[in-house]
Amino acid sequence: MIQVEEALSIIATQSCRMPIKKIQVAHALDFILAEAIYAPIDMPPFRQSAMDGYAFSHSELHDYKVVSTSQAGDFSNKKTAKNEAIRIFTGAFVPDRLDTVVMQEHTLRNDDFLQITKMPSFCANVRNKGEQVQKGALVLEKNTRITPAAIGFLACLGITKISVFAKPKVAIVITGNELVSPGKKLPKGKIFESNSVMLEAAMQTIGISKIKKLTVNDSLKNTKKVLKECLSNFDIILVSGGISVGDYDFVKEALLANGVEELFYTINQKPGKPLFFGKKEQTIVFALPGNPASSLTSFYVYVYPALKISMGFEAIHLPKIKRKITSSFENNSGKSLFLKGFYDDNSVTVLESQSSAMLNSFAMANGLIYLSFDAVSVEKNQEVVVIPIL
Amino acid sequence: MIQVEEALSIIATQSCRMPIKKIQVAHALDFILAEAIYAPIDMPPFRQSAMDGYAFSHSELHDYKVVSTSQAGDFSNKKTAKNEAIRIFTGAFVPDRLDTVVMQEHTLRNDDFLQITKMPSFCANVRNKGEQVQKGALVLEKNTRITPAAIGFLACLGITKISVFAKPKVAIVITGNELVSPGKKLPKGKIFESNSVMLEAAMQTIGISKIKKLTVNDSLKNTKKVLKECLSNFDIILVSGGISVGDYDFVKEALLANGVEELFYTINQKPGKPLFFGKKEQTIVFALPGNPASSLTSFYVYVYPALKISMGFEAIHLPKIKRKITSSFENNSGKSLFLKGFYDDNSVTVLESQSSAMLNSFAMANGLIYLSFDAVSVEKNQEVVVIPIL
Repeated sequence: MIQVEEALSIIATQSCRMPIKKIQVAHALDFILAEAIYAPIDMPPFRQSAMDGYAFSHSELHDYKVVSTSQAGDFSNKKTAKNEAIRIFTGAFVPDRLDTVVMQEHTLRNDDFLQITKMPSFCANVRNKGEQVQKGALVLEKNTRITPAAIGFLACLGITKISVFAKPKVAIVITGNELVSPGKKLPKGKIFESNSVMLEAAMQTIGISKIKKLTVNDSLKNTKKVLKECLSNFDIILVSGGISVGDYDFVKEALLANGVEELFYTINQKPGKPLFFGKKEQTIVFALPGNPASSLTSFYVYVYPALKISMGFEAIHLPKIKRKITSSFENNSGKSLFLKGFYDDNSVTVLESQSSAMLNSFAMANGLIYLSFDAVSVEKNQEVVVIPIL
Repeated sequence: MIQVEEALSIIATQSCRMPIKKIQVAHALDFILAEAIYAPIDMPPFRQSAMDGYAFSHSELHDYKVVSTSQAGDFSNKKTAKNEAIRIFTGAFVPDRLDTVVMQEHTLRNDDFLQITKMPSFCANVRNKGEQVQKGALVLEKNTRITPAAIGFLACLGITKISVFAKPKVAIVITGNELVSPGKKLPKGKIFESNSVMLEAAMQTIGISKIKKLTVNDSLKNTKKVLKECLSNFDIILVSGGISVGDYDFVKEALLANGVEELFYTINQKPGKPLFFGKKEQTIVFALPGNPASSLTSFYVYVYPALKISMGFEAIHLPKIKRKITSSFENNSGKSLFLKGFYDDNSVTVLESQSSAMLNSFAMANGLIYLSFDAVSVEKNQEVVVIPIL
């Protein structure tokens, strides 16, 4: 049995990034860049007007003749005489021989005649070619997370494909003869299976959608067979249940028989003590406790960072915050605790019903309160670590 | 022209929730419940063991004969004699006449003979029927956000369908003759169109996927036609560009001609001054500035809350945090500012290049710094409001 911190450290060391693949920028939200991006063009790509107004060649003159119009998207580089100006709009091409734009609010116009009533400074209101980004400049570093702004930025540089770290294909393997799919009749002695949709949803919150859910009954032979198939076809396998020490808990045996290396098994914590972490080649395996609340806690604390590493993230853990606890708490278990809690801007309250079997308090919680095994008692108003959940 | 706070207040008042629809629990992540949920069954649905061990009838006896086995999922309610026990596993049905479970670590077993070495208290290690949730109890209130935990909780109660507020169908209408799709050749005078994929990605971060992107050239006739179609078929319309006062900005005219009521136009802010908000029947229209950075800022500050309201959320704004600014800042514009910034645990830095035309600083930013129009100067280390972005 190991402590929480040691388990996290083993996961951080053993988990691996997915291979690099090229994808469309439009589909790259929340992927991590696997390459540095250099600007293929200047931005702006030409001298453009920053205003609706008139482009002219700066001089002592205040009176001009308007000879043409440059709307955004137009391109005409015709010569103009010294006393000639062109009507121009924001974003429009500024002809090479014109240097300055006067905003329309600082002019009087009468037919073709233009009078500048407030003279702008030389080169005012013109964005120079490459002023924002020069062709060839580094625009996004490797390992950048692709945000909506980054997608827009890449698109405005004309970039349509980028190299990113792939997202993992995940198998969720549900074990337990007592489980019945929701929607079916519930025979005596059975309960509804909830971990598969719950774990699937938890992965969807971080953009993982290639998820296959499988069910296996409590037999060693079947468990071995299903896990063997999963080990060949998935990057990360989450097994639910069958991992404690009961006579019918076949999962660990089936994993070892399939050549999965045990990296740890059992953590000094509550909930989620029986948690197996292993690896075969590049495939990572978590065998999670079957109790729904233990399963979800284990997901947030241990599976989440492994998934984040696989996708190339550098910040792999859910962020931690500190809050004052609203009542004292005794921890005589000698174990590290993850308590379902509800926090606001200042404080955090331990919710009732911390049972690992049920999700009622989890469904009300917005965070997990972490108390280390060596924190025996926590006083009211003492600051504790809270992990906001998704 | 109105102030930021007034614009936000109009949006909050005028935006409306989407109709209610019934969906699968498995697909309900981040929807908002439109009904209260009551438990259709007891949880647990039967008396179940909380341990791997032996079930027996509590008495003075320490020696028992093991007569059968109850594995999780089994159901057998056979009578047992006073000196008979059954092997039982976590989650398994506890026969009616047995009251207590002893954990296996507190027993000695030899063939069928069992000796209890440490006697548990009466009724220990048994979870009573309905102990966690009683049939008929309120389990999730109306307006609850469906989290992974809530999905699991509903599933374990056997619930497969719930009523939620639908998500809006959104049209993104791109205007501007200067725009060319990324991937095509860029003619002189033109720029790449980036707002559609950027706004689409921003909506994907909050779970909106029914998005149609349309393009319209700068003509009043076409703009009117496209907007007319959108007004009949979408819940929220985002028009990009064509909303300032240039001769070729047809959007406002086309909206009014289609019967859209103007709720505000232009906000005393930078970037994003020309921003139109209107409504026709239940359809909400935002006409956003065409400059990419203005567009995205407007999205986060104004479109985001309208989308959140439509989906039934009660917390409609991006959360605000406070950070110490790393350098003094003068705001002589008389306008409220949203500055691209980068914050950490303690402080926030105003990024270089705040131009509304470019996304380079936005792609580096993790927050918008909000300075109200009446905050003329901010000193170094003064606390400012930061809106973390997605």
